[in-house]
Amino acid sequence: MSEWEEKTIRTESIYDGNIIQLQVDDVLLPDENISKRELIKHPGAVGIIPITKDNKIVFVKQYRKPLEKALVEIPAGKLEDAEDPQVTARRELEEETGYKAGSLDFVVSFYTSPGFADEIMHLYVTKDIEPLKDALPGDADEFVERVELTLDEAKQYVNEQRIHDAKTNYAILYLERMKEM
Amino acid sequence: MSEWEEKTIRTESIYDGNIIQLQVDDVLLPDENISKRELIKHPGAVGIIPITKDNKIVFVKQYRKPLEKALVEIPAGKLEDAEDPQVTARRELEEETGYKAGSLDFVVSFYTSPGFADEIMHLYVTKDIEPLKDALPGDADEFVERVELTLDEAKQYVNEQRIHDAKTNYAILYLERMKEM
Repeated sequence: MSEWEEKTIRTESIYDGNIIQLQVDDVLLPDENISKRELIKHPGAVGIIPITKDNKIVFVKQYRKPLEKALVEIPAGKLEDAEDPQVTARRELEEETGYKAGSLDFVVSFYTSPGFADEIMHLYVTKDIEPLKDALPGDADEFVERVELTLDEAKQYVNEQRIHDAKTNYAILYLERMKEM
Repeated sequence: MSEWEEKTIRTESIYDGNIIQLQVDDVLLPDENISKRELIKHPGAVGIIPITKDNKIVFVKQYRKPLEKALVEIPAGKLEDAEDPQVTARRELEEETGYKAGSLDFVVSFYTSPGFADEIMHLYVTKDIEPLKDALPGDADEFVERVELTLDEAKQYVNEQRIHDAKTNYAILYLERMKEM
């Protein structure tokens, strides 16, 4: 048994959507009191840090409805059922940027918001990319624009909060550190 | 108007909880098609990177119900209504670790999962901490244990996936980079 396990005494499924599910659990706490936990179930996601031959980082700009604004992010997408994250990473890179990846190197996995969601994000980096001959159609409801930036330009985007999300901020810090090693 | 704004044509509130709200919007896409967006509203959060006089990083270990396991994370918590994030940071540090902070330095803000949630995380770092004389009571339904680690020990926890969440992985990469500059 995990430490301080919170035993579920009742689960209520509130919503079962295309991307997320919401459930509310009544849990028994270590002190025998009962509390509620609001939980988002998510299939998991990947992010890719693609770097071109001339040392530009490939980002995508897209409108993020929860924020009501556009952000510049590394290419990313959610896992289809039980898919190998590398398969998702290659597909999302092709659909969102028109680049095809050779080898991918694993960087890190992390939970994005473990207080209320089980979403896990797997990050990969690759310098081994080539433009696709024929661009693939992306998701029908996704509008993205490719943005290629040097690391210094990307740091400027961070300062201007045009880059403003966990996986992309992590990616930039990761590349800064690699450069110094 | 933002680029590729997705115009909301209908909003349905599905759930209004203690920490999160779920709404589903019908949106008009740039190509005039209609799609659904599942959106989690969250009050926002802070994370603090506290460093002791003898150069240990102060973490907390707690059970995360969405993951059904315990993680070791930097101290963190959600904003109370329209609260200054520095106020939240100081309170969470005291409640979760028994340390009181003097000055706090801002590190970064990022959205944790901009595809489906508006949660923003504000990160602070401080080397200016003192043990509280009288420990404060924490949230009644929160069980946390303080864990102090050197940076090398923390990196080992990352390898073992005992540290496994965006803000904490970011914090460790940030401290590694600071050490090298």
